[in-house]
Amino acid sequence: MRVYLAGPEVFLPNGRDLLAEKRALARRYGFEPHAPIDLSHLGTAGRYERGVAIAAANEARMREADAVIANLTPFRGISADPGTVYELGFMAALGRVVLAYSNDARGYFERVRDEYYDGRIETAAAGAQGADGHRIEDHDMADNLMLDGGIAARGGVFMRRAVPVERRFEDTVAFVACLDWLAAQRH
Amino acid sequence: MRVYLAGPEVFLPNGRDLLAEKRALARRYGFEPHAPIDLSHLGTAGRYERGVAIAAANEARMREADAVIANLTPFRGISADPGTVYELGFMAALGRVVLAYSNDARGYFERVRDEYYDGRIETAAAGAQGADGHRIEDHDMADNLMLDGGIAARGGVFMRRAVPVERRFEDTVAFVACLDWLAAQRH
Repeated sequence: MRVYLAGPEVFLPNGRDLLAEKRALARRYGFEPHAPIDLSHLGTAGRYERGVAIAAANEARMREADAVIANLTPFRGISADPGTVYELGFMAALGRVVLAYSNDARGYFERVRDEYYDGRIETAAAGAQGADGHRIEDHDMADNLMLDGGIAARGGVFMRRAVPVERRFEDTVAFVACLDWLAAQRH
Repeated sequence: MRVYLAGPEVFLPNGRDLLAEKRALARRYGFEPHAPIDLSHLGTAGRYERGVAIAAANEARMREADAVIANLTPFRGISADPGTVYELGFMAALGRVVLAYSNDARGYFERVRDEYYDGRIETAAAGAQGADGHRIEDHDMADNLMLDGGIAARGGVFMRRAVPVERRFEDTVAFVACLDWLAAQRH
């Protein structure tokens, strides 16, 4: 079984080591890991052409995979890395097994309220909203409902774990829980 | 031709009017518009079950559509609404025609530098990075490379337009440019 390891690791200073560790963990379960392509590859093309080529290479790797484990830990803001979210939607549409985890255990509603609106939200007839009048969905989910809902609809799993900020991209416990869950599906 | 109108409009106070306007514009071109389901529908189920049901309803609408026009204007941060990004990846994987627009004309690199890192970035051997050491991709793209790259790879279009912040979710010029482009494909 091939598993695509979606996540923002490619942007992290120790991303190569983190992905090597995730690959090794996946192999320990008998899975064949596929990870997003390293940004430093793909030679000397212009930066735009390089971006297009990396995207196409990642899509090809996803098509070869039977499942995705998406690291949806918030990245540069209150939600998951958009590249990872695109990949989650992509794999869902292909009918693959979809798993995700977040090393921030809070729900989307709480995170938007506390981090984006600094705790200042209002309750209107239509529900909670920020000072800008934008509605804040509260579905007891980890991120936007398309993400949690898409995973739930196809019987996947979304693991959440409270990890201190400084270890949020290093901690592999929730990732391993996903591997455990996926391994159990095989039997 | 059925067109799915992905975007964060459902969260806006005037979202119903904005979607009605976008639907009317699409019809003027002879397209049949499909929009994400209104959050207030789907009765009295629990909030989690409701979220899952909304996600499934949106996926069903996407499967019925021939194309998607995704509003990737940054929402609650430096990137597009994650639900819209999931939908873009979903439609790309289904092989549909993918179009997008953003009413923020800046590139992802410039927006991350100026908004997320307040202009303070460093240039290391591996490229630009923030104070947290996270690499900042610079592919002359509007958002994460999976979004721009996924659109480019299938011959779609990503329109950018500089719209003042206060009109960023109301302005339909870039949306209409997408309709123009899609209409031209028919001939």
